[in-house]
Amino acid sequence: MVPKVIFGAGSFNQLAEIISPKRKSRVPFVFIVDDVFKKNEGLVNRIPLNFNDKLLFISANEEPKTTEIDTIVKDLKEEFNGIPSGIIGIGGGGIMDVAKAVSIMLTNSGKAHEYQGLDLVKKKAVYHVGVPTISGTGAEVSRASVLMGPTKKLGINSDFTPFDQVILDPELTIGVPKNQWFYTGMDCFIHCVASLNGTLLNAFSQSYGEKAYDLCLEIFTEDKNSDAEKRAKLMMASWHSGMSIAYSQVGIAHAMSYGLSYVLGTKHGIGNCIVFNQLEEFYGNDVAIFKEMMARFDIDLPQNVCAGLSEIELNTVIDVALGLTPLWENALGKDWQTLMTRDRLKNLYLKI
Amino acid sequence: MVPKVIFGAGSFNQLAEIISPKRKSRVPFVFIVDDVFKKNEGLVNRIPLNFNDKLLFISANEEPKTTEIDTIVKDLKEEFNGIPSGIIGIGGGGIMDVAKAVSIMLTNSGKAHEYQGLDLVKKKAVYHVGVPTISGTGAEVSRASVLMGPTKKLGINSDFTPFDQVILDPELTIGVPKNQWFYTGMDCFIHCVASLNGTLLNAFSQSYGEKAYDLCLEIFTEDKNSDAEKRAKLMMASWHSGMSIAYSQVGIAHAMSYGLSYVLGTKHGIGNCIVFNQLEEFYGNDVAIFKEMMARFDIDLPQNVCAGLSEIELNTVIDVALGLTPLWENALGKDWQTLMTRDRLKNLYLKI
Repeated sequence: MVPKVIFGAGSFNQLAEIISPKRKSRVPFVFIVDDVFKKNEGLVNRIPLNFNDKLLFISANEEPKTTEIDTIVKDLKEEFNGIPSGIIGIGGGGIMDVAKAVSIMLTNSGKAHEYQGLDLVKKKAVYHVGVPTISGTGAEVSRASVLMGPTKKLGINSDFTPFDQVILDPELTIGVPKNQWFYTGMDCFIHCVASLNGTLLNAFSQSYGEKAYDLCLEIFTEDKNSDAEKRAKLMMASWHSGMSIAYSQVGIAHAMSYGLSYVLGTKHGIGNCIVFNQLEEFYGNDVAIFKEMMARFDIDLPQNVCAGLSEIELNTVIDVALGLTPLWENALGKDWQTLMTRDRLKNLYLKI
Repeated sequence: MVPKVIFGAGSFNQLAEIISPKRKSRVPFVFIVDDVFKKNEGLVNRIPLNFNDKLLFISANEEPKTTEIDTIVKDLKEEFNGIPSGIIGIGGGGIMDVAKAVSIMLTNSGKAHEYQGLDLVKKKAVYHVGVPTISGTGAEVSRASVLMGPTKKLGINSDFTPFDQVILDPELTIGVPKNQWFYTGMDCFIHCVASLNGTLLNAFSQSYGEKAYDLCLEIFTEDKNSDAEKRAKLMMASWHSGMSIAYSQVGIAHAMSYGLSYVLGTKHGIGNCIVFNQLEEFYGNDVAIFKEMMARFDIDLPQNVCAGLSEIELNTVIDVALGLTPLWENALGKDWQTLMTRDRLKNLYLKI
């Protein structure tokens, strides 16, 4: 779990004060920032650069790759001839994942893809801080850094992955485009649905999942909150849904969405929405609520996304999805393989 | 915040595995255990003692004192000629507070009372693990160790206070006497009421506070959960309410209860109940719910608890309570002193 967190509109202003005691005598911090902020001087000027601190803009247009992590780490090591004082990630879920993985790979030898899986990281990561600028992925609180590797999309899931410090400043989410706000918010909603309907549910996950679910309903189906309240509450919903799946698992939508990401490069948030929209037979009531939310915010989704895939590509999509055993077990129980055959999954993919 | 937590019935069995990597070559762990378990062989035999680990039974009949901490620390240093590998606290809120304070005072010089207050601790505490055996205080998750000092009841509130690891095993709460279960559960309920109705409320505290409040209603006013579910949910309610007040504050009941503790030695849980029962004018709806809960579980409270106090003693009670500025500010706002005069507070004390 994340040991330190601050929350509040404007709390980003405390970043300098928070990281300053962590600086090792003039050794730089590296700020890994979503490049959508490149032209946002308002934000960039507030990043507390000192000495030879480095500002590294990263594109979040594609899902982060293990090879990208390896390149960043190699470049940083060459440029600084040593290990930075810390990594500060500022951006969405993808940037959170990059910041977490870079901080791990600065102290662990080899390549990032070697650490995809459960508890493979051996050494403590460099001090790392997460500053989310969009809400819903839960990446700010999770113990995974989800990356596209040479053979799989999978998390570096370890005790050393979580941020040492998170800054939750809802004002940083002002200006997120509506569709992206919705897709990412739905990532949170779908985490809750998967967790609350999963076979791995327990009172810990349930309490976090129920709260995040209720907050999503408030934000996406009701009108009682101001915009500022909605921003703050969605940030907390993301946090709680991340905590919920930390102690359970996600489910069918995520498994299928990982397959799409791997072959089509579909981004995580929209991928989940595309899939979840067709999962009535598994999550009937919540899919109905999801469709209401889509209508309410006038959200369109791509149709027939698998139509152009070759048979080989479609098989790869299915292989990647079916490889995620814990997700299927959570959704359908130990006997999931008898319930989710290749044919059934193929038909689901052809529906979306 | 607590960086590591495990949850689940039976999870206490993982204690040996969890602490073993933290042992510094045969340096002992010290288990600080509530002495109500002295005759509970079932629990005592499950405590994973190895090498020269020490089992220290502590009475929780009275609120923990700073002098008690000083004595324990002095004895441990003399006995072991060095600092233990870690402190494991097993018990209720008082034991949690003792374990946290001892782990701090093993590495910080001077006396425990010198650290009562905000961020006065300078050095990292010894590795410490919390295993709550009753639910409601939130001490398992909080950044304070609340102690009775020579001049005040106040927390050692610091970044180094929270446990490094918590084990939430609801089965350990089996056998708690009904009254104690109720009083301690109400500590949690009252935290939520104070937080949700306080002027310091924010979306972070609100989301945790609302969830804990809802769980309390489920447990104490409804019949839909099994006993095992109730135990698990109350453990989570305690956790969430602790998180809620971590980012806001408690209120009038706690301020007044601290005064009672200081002069009469009233224990925290029952003290809060005695006071809260008479706070209709501040928390009307929730006091009504509280009275319903009392009736439902056939709970009695002492009456006229201040009747035997001398004028001097009553003034001390009032002084201690009024000294807790942040609690009054949270409850009544910046102008609290005009709203809560000595006379008004005296009348409240004479009502309880």
